Amino acid sequence: MKIGVIASIAHRLPPRNYGPWEQIASTLTEGFVARGHEVTLFATANSATAAQLHGTAELGYEEEGGGLDPQVSAALHNAAAFERAGEFDILANHFDFMPLTYSRLVSTPMVTTIHGFSSAEILPVYRAYDDIGHYVAISDANRHPDLSYAATIHHGIDISDFTFVPDVGRYLLFLGRIHPDKGTHLAIEVAKQAGLPLIIAGVVQDEAYFHDAVHPHVDGAAVSYLGPVGRSERDALLGGARALLHLISFAEPFGLSVVEALATGTPIIATPLGSMPEILRHGSTGYLVSDVAGAVSAVSQVGHLDREVCRKEATDRFSAERMIEDYLAVFERVLGTRTRRPRGRRQSIGSPGMFSHATF
Amino acid sequence: MKIGVIASIAHRLPPRNYGPWEQIASTLTEGFVARGHEVTLFATANSATAAQLHGTAELGYEEEGGGLDPQVSAALHNAAAFERAGEFDILANHFDFMPLTYSRLVSTPMVTTIHGFSSAEILPVYRAYDDIGHYVAISDANRHPDLSYAATIHHGIDISDFTFVPDVGRYLLFLGRIHPDKGTHLAIEVAKQAGLPLIIAGVVQDEAYFHDAVHPHVDGAAVSYLGPVGRSERDALLGGARALLHLISFAEPFGLSVVEALATGTPIIATPLGSMPEILRHGSTGYLVSDVAGAVSAVSQVGHLDREVCRKEATDRFSAERMIEDYLAVFERVLGTRTRRPRGRRQSIGSPGMFSHATF
Repeated sequence: MKIGVIASIAHRLPPRNYGPWEQIASTLTEGFVARGHEVTLFATANSATAAQLHGTAELGYEEEGGGLDPQVSAALHNAAAFERAGEFDILANHFDFMPLTYSRLVSTPMVTTIHGFSSAEILPVYRAYDDIGHYVAISDANRHPDLSYAATIHHGIDISDFTFVPDVGRYLLFLGRIHPDKGTHLAIEVAKQAGLPLIIAGVVQDEAYFHDAVHPHVDGAAVSYLGPVGRSERDALLGGARALLHLISFAEPFGLSVVEALATGTPIIATPLGSMPEILRHGSTGYLVSDVAGAVSAVSQVGHLDREVCRKEATDRFSAERMIEDYLAVFERVLGTRTRRPRGRRQSIGSPGMFSHATF
Repeated sequence: MKIGVIASIAHRLPPRNYGPWEQIASTLTEGFVARGHEVTLFATANSATAAQLHGTAELGYEEEGGGLDPQVSAALHNAAAFERAGEFDILANHFDFMPLTYSRLVSTPMVTTIHGFSSAEILPVYRAYDDIGHYVAISDANRHPDLSYAATIHHGIDISDFTFVPDVGRYLLFLGRIHPDKGTHLAIEVAKQAGLPLIIAGVVQDEAYFHDAVHPHVDGAAVSYLGPVGRSERDALLGGARALLHLISFAEPFGLSVVEALATGTPIIATPLGSMPEILRHGSTGYLVSDVAGAVSAVSQVGHLDREVCRKEATDRFSAERMIEDYLAVFERVLGTRTRRPRGRRQSIGSPGMFSHATF
């Protein structure tokens, strides 16, 4: 297949630190190439890939020195992909709503992964292109009732990037953006009540929150803060933890750090919001808890969970291979059915002709 | 000709108060219709036009209640125009750089009026589409050396909207956005030194500036502030003034209020920046001055200028008719030459094949 991948240009691919949209687009691109497909990756010019790279932006617009106006960079980037659309069998969009607005002007079909709805204000675009959008949800929880979907495809990770650790760790871990939504302050509270040390790692997204609710607790012993961590440090941190504390207060579309923890054998204590009930099996790969007391109680039990079961869950359900095959199956389905599917016809969620998210 | 006009959706057409991009797109659209062309206007759904109206946005995104995300509204608006491009002989873009990024995906040529460069950051887009952009500059002063242009076309106004006043007025006028760039504070200083009352009208664009540098001087006698004014009040204010004070401190691409003043017979005292030396004839339709002292001196002379000469200048050089004909000539030229002009060939400014801005 000739595939054009439209990646986000907020960060390069693969991202150096934060960048889940870029990470998934990178994993997919390299996977498509490895399977013999002819892939052109539209991404920042400093990205690393085995695909043909088409980079109109030198640097990611959220990266240091990437000073170009994001709207200008994104417009040139999107236009470049559509101006070459005729070279591809299919376009794979991982860059939000804007590419949809170009998609009726070319005949190449496009599959759009909705990596979450940044705001309700972008919904009108998804509604307007629902008939040709071939949307992929990244969790059932993130499906919007107004939209029809080609599939739900959970993210997958390169399992070999993560080392299985059989032993139960001695600390709790918070890994992710430092932001009230992610519950960094709740992780601190739980660790203190449970009497275990907490390690915090991740980029600070909310400076005031970090200053007020996190930094005062950091003493390097009971609570440590490491800043953003790279790939290998991430592996070691996850594997050494007794549990990952993922006490989010919003409906997170997916949690990459959660499946990465599973890959090292580490279970997760999470609030049952967004995709968490789809990803975790309560009492097996972690615990779904509704408050601090529940989380503290879960910490006392989590050492008894079988870490091999966690690792196997990651391998079975959240591998890059599974994700790559799921996307290729959607592409083939879209290519196979597009001549038979009248434009403008809308499929409702769960109609018999749809991909089942149980299969994909 | 079948013409698709892509207007700005910051405001409805014609604008109720501020909105020069929308005003010009509106004047052109109505002029094309009046000359028998088949015109579709892409604008806010609450716009008034004799053309076919295609409105994806209910309200202007800078208008009260127009709460939609501007990027989302603009994307749906632009896409709507390009998805119908096949219905038109030509597209006329009055909505900045974004439509350019769709323009290679359709075969209908597009003429883009550059209403000014909001920032240097948008230049990469204009450079990238220079070969097919058919750019129209709104003044020679606003031409960017990196770009090639189809023409310079000065704005035109409906002269019949403005009443010629033969008598010399007793007050000075500031009409425009209240912003340091527009020199509201300089107008106050000049009026005080000249011993004439000053009337200020326009939207406040910089609240702090208004509060600090304008409002303290407003006493309703020496200095009055009327807020934004509608069409008929504007006519009366301009016609009754001894002179319009247009002491800008930036290279303004064009000054609509300046030619409106001329249409009422009122001369202008302006700084010689941007388009001012192209629009005004020093010592005939106003004075180009370099500082407050020069402006005060000009005020003492301005009553001797012939107001009929000002009116005639507006009629001869800045009428809607002239502007409409200039645009239609560019469209015809683009349509006539497009098959003979190889894509990608770039014409340099002033090359023999170009439209002369003296003609257009």
